Amino acid sequence: MTSLRKNEPMPQFNKLSASEAAKKIASREISCEALIDDCLARILERDKDVQAWQYLDPEAALAQARLLDRELEKGQARGPLHGIPLGVKDIFDTFDMPTEYGCAIHKGYRPATDAATVARARHVGMVVMGKTVTCELATHVPSKTRNPHNLDHTPGGSSAGSAAAVADFMTPLAIGTQTVGSAIRPASFCGVVGYKPSFNLLSRAGCKVEGDSLDTVGVFARSVADVALYVGTQTNDARLISLPVEERALRIGICPTFDANLMQAETLEAMDRARRELSRAGARVSEFVFPNAFRPLRDAHWTVFMFEMWRSFSDEFYRNPSGLDPTLLERLEEAGRITGEAYVKAQEIGYQCRAMIGEAMGECDVLIAPSALGEAPVGLSSTGPTALNQIWSFLWTPTVTVPVHKGPNGLPVGLQVCGRINDDPRTLAAAHWIHQRMAV
Amino acid sequence: MTSLRKNEPMPQFNKLSASEAAKKIASREISCEALIDDCLARILERDKDVQAWQYLDPEAALAQARLLDRELEKGQARGPLHGIPLGVKDIFDTFDMPTEYGCAIHKGYRPATDAATVARARHVGMVVMGKTVTCELATHVPSKTRNPHNLDHTPGGSSAGSAAAVADFMTPLAIGTQTVGSAIRPASFCGVVGYKPSFNLLSRAGCKVEGDSLDTVGVFARSVADVALYVGTQTNDARLISLPVEERALRIGICPTFDANLMQAETLEAMDRARRELSRAGARVSEFVFPNAFRPLRDAHWTVFMFEMWRSFSDEFYRNPSGLDPTLLERLEEAGRITGEAYVKAQEIGYQCRAMIGEAMGECDVLIAPSALGEAPVGLSSTGPTALNQIWSFLWTPTVTVPVHKGPNGLPVGLQVCGRINDDPRTLAAAHWIHQRMAV
Repeated sequence: MTSLRKNEPMPQFNKLSASEAAKKIASREISCEALIDDCLARILERDKDVQAWQYLDPEAALAQARLLDRELEKGQARGPLHGIPLGVKDIFDTFDMPTEYGCAIHKGYRPATDAATVARARHVGMVVMGKTVTCELATHVPSKTRNPHNLDHTPGGSSAGSAAAVADFMTPLAIGTQTVGSAIRPASFCGVVGYKPSFNLLSRAGCKVEGDSLDTVGVFARSVADVALYVGTQTNDARLISLPVEERALRIGICPTFDANLMQAETLEAMDRARRELSRAGARVSEFVFPNAFRPLRDAHWTVFMFEMWRSFSDEFYRNPSGLDPTLLERLEEAGRITGEAYVKAQEIGYQCRAMIGEAMGECDVLIAPSALGEAPVGLSSTGPTALNQIWSFLWTPTVTVPVHKGPNGLPVGLQVCGRINDDPRTLAAAHWIHQRMAV
Repeated sequence: MTSLRKNEPMPQFNKLSASEAAKKIASREISCEALIDDCLARILERDKDVQAWQYLDPEAALAQARLLDRELEKGQARGPLHGIPLGVKDIFDTFDMPTEYGCAIHKGYRPATDAATVARARHVGMVVMGKTVTCELATHVPSKTRNPHNLDHTPGGSSAGSAAAVADFMTPLAIGTQTVGSAIRPASFCGVVGYKPSFNLLSRAGCKVEGDSLDTVGVFARSVADVALYVGTQTNDARLISLPVEERALRIGICPTFDANLMQAETLEAMDRARRELSRAGARVSEFVFPNAFRPLRDAHWTVFMFEMWRSFSDEFYRNPSGLDPTLLERLEEAGRITGEAYVKAQEIGYQCRAMIGEAMGECDVLIAPSALGEAPVGLSSTGPTALNQIWSFLWTPTVTVPVHKGPNGLPVGLQVCGRINDDPRTLAAAHWIHQRMAV
C-alpha cells in the first residue's frame, strides 16, 4: 500500500486532519502505513528542535499501521478513526511503552496495562504513535519541549508535547490533561484546537492522578471536528462523531471573567474581533458577566487543586521527596498546611457555582473567554500563567480553544468557547462555527 | 517491648479499637509489635475459615511495627494512629506487596508505588498489615471470603475481606471502596461500622478505577470514632480526629427510600426501633420522603455505573476478555451498548439531585436508611443485592452504617446514617450517637 504515495511528489499526509486522513484511508486512497510514515518523517526532521516526544518506537508504530491496513484489506474497518495516529501524553499508562509521568522517580516504569482512553483508542483503530512530553507529574515544572512557532518561546504546559506535536504536523491528534490550565493554555500557545470536555466525559482510569476533582482528559487537533471525533468514538456518541448543525443564530456571551485586567493587548484584540466579526456573521453577541457568587471561584480552585495535588502525590512526597523538582516539593509542603476543613469549604464553592452556571448563562449557547493572557511568553523557564484557566477547570464545563489571532511576536492567540456542563455537542458545534469564521 | 504483654494472660490486644490501642501505644502501655502480634495470631487462628486476606507477610508487618516502636522510644510519635494496623483492600496499589485487583489478568502484579491513601496511612504511623480480599475488579463477582459470623453466609462484597477482617478482630481498621454498595453492604452483613465519606474526600490515586464519578474510598472499623480518625488523619481535619459533640437534640429523618418494599422484616424492625428508641433518647425523629425528582436516581445510577465500568475496564475488556469472569464479561458487553448521550442524561439526574439534597433534608441533620435488604443471605454464590445502596453512592453524600440489630439467623443488621455532602463531621457524630444508643 505504501506504493500509493510513491506516485505523488512529497505527499505530506501528515498535514491532513484526522478526519480527512481517515476518509482517505477508508476509501483506500492512502494506507495507514503511508500516513504514519509521513508523520514519522516529520518527527525525524523536526523533533530535535521541538522535542515534543518522550518516547517513540517508529517500527512499533509502523507495525500497528500495517496490521490496520491488513484489516482494511479484509474489509474490517474499525470506525471513523481507523489508522489515525495518536500522541499520548506521558501521564497515561501504555502497556507497550514506558510511562514516566515526566518525573525522575518514575524513570523506566513500564505499566502492565493501557489507560482506558488509550485502550479504547486502539480498539477503534488508532495507532499509538508514541508518548508526548509532559511537565513533571503534569504540574508547573517546565519541560524540554519548545514552541514549534518559535523555539525560544514556551509551548505552555503541562501537555506541552501533545500541543507542540499537533501544531508541528507530527500527528493529527493527541491527548493530554487539564487540572489548572494544562490543555487549553498550551493549545492556545501552539495555535491548535484544544478541547477540555465536560468533567468525567472521558475516562481517567490509568492516568496519573493530580487533582481528582479537577483532572480532565483533553484532546488536541488542528480542527474542532477532529477533537469531537476522538471524544465521540470514545463515548459512543453519534452527536460528536458528526457535529450537529445549528439552524438558528448562535447566541454568544463575551466573558472576560473577573480577571479581565490580566488580558494582554492581543487577547483584548481577539475578544474585540469576536464581538464584531461573529455578530457580523449572524451570531447574537452580548456581554456576559458572572454572578457575584462566582468571584471566589479562582481562589477556591487553587485551594482544591493544592490540597488534592498534595494528597495525590503522597507516595512521591513521603518516600522520594528528593526525586521531585524543588519548586514542586516546596509547593507540596505549602499545600500540606491546608486543612481538610478549608478544602471542603472550597469544594462547596465549586458545587454551588456548577449548580448555577447553566441558568446563569441565560440565553447564551456558549461563552467566549480568553484562553491565556496572550501569546506564548518568551523563554523556557516557565510554562506561562494559568490565571485565566482556573475557573473553567473548576466549573467542569466543556471548553474548546480555537486559534483565532496573532500576537506581537506573530505567535498564535486562542479564545476558548465554553458551554454548559454536559452540553459538549453544542459547545463543539459553536466552536467549529467560530473557528471557521475567525481563523487567521 | 513484647515482654510487656507476656505479663498478662492472653491479652488479645486485637480486640481493642484503633483509638484504644493507639492510646495504649502512645502511653507505652503496649507496644506496636504486641498489637500486630495479636492480630497475626488471630489471623493464623481464623483465616483458614474466613479467608479475608489475599496477601499477608507477617514478618514485614512485624518489622514495620518494630520500626514504629523504636520511633516512640525516641519520642517521635507520628500521631493518633501510630502503630495501628490497617487492612488494605487489594484494589489499592502497594509498593511492597502484590496488588491483583481480585482478577486473574493482574495476577502477580507489583505496583511501583503506594496508593495515595496508603502512603498517607504509613506516614501517620499505620502498619500496612496486608491486602484484603476484593471481588474481581471490585464488581459483583463473589470472592472466597466468608462471613465470620456464619461461614455459610456471604460477607457481602466487593470489600469482602476488609469487612470480614475487622468483624473478626483481625485488624481494627481497614479500607475498601464503594461504587454501588461495596462498603456499606459488607459492613452491614459483617456487623461492623462502615463509612463512605463524601465523594472525593479521600484520594483515589493508585486505586483501580471502576466508576470514576462514583468510586469512593470506604473505611471499616468497630467504632464510629475509629473510622473518623482514619479520615481525619488523612485529610488534616481536626473535626474528625475528635468528633464534635452536638449540644442540641439531633434531628433525624427516617428515610426508607423509594424502595421500602425491598426491606426484609429484620430491617423494618431495625427502622422501627430507630424511630422509637432514638426519639426516647431525645432525638427529634420525623419521617423523611425524597422529592419526586429523586425517583429516577436508582436507574440513573445504574446507567452511569455500567457506562463507567465499561470504559474503565477497556484494557481488560479488549486485550484479555477471557481473563474476566464470564458474568462480568457479559455485563461489560451489555454496558457497551449504552450511548454517550444516555450516559450524560443519567449524569444530569445525579447533578440535579446532588444540588437539591441539602435543602431537601430541611431541618434534618441526618437521615436513617437501610444499609441492606436484611441480614447476610445464605450462600457464597452472590454478594447480596445492592438496590438500597445505589442512590447513596450516586448522591455523593457521606454515609455511615452502624450495626444495630440482628436478623432471624442471628446475623448483624445495620442502618446507615446519611448526611449532607461534605457534612462529614456532623454525620459521623450523629452516627456515633445513634450507634451508642442502638447497638445490640
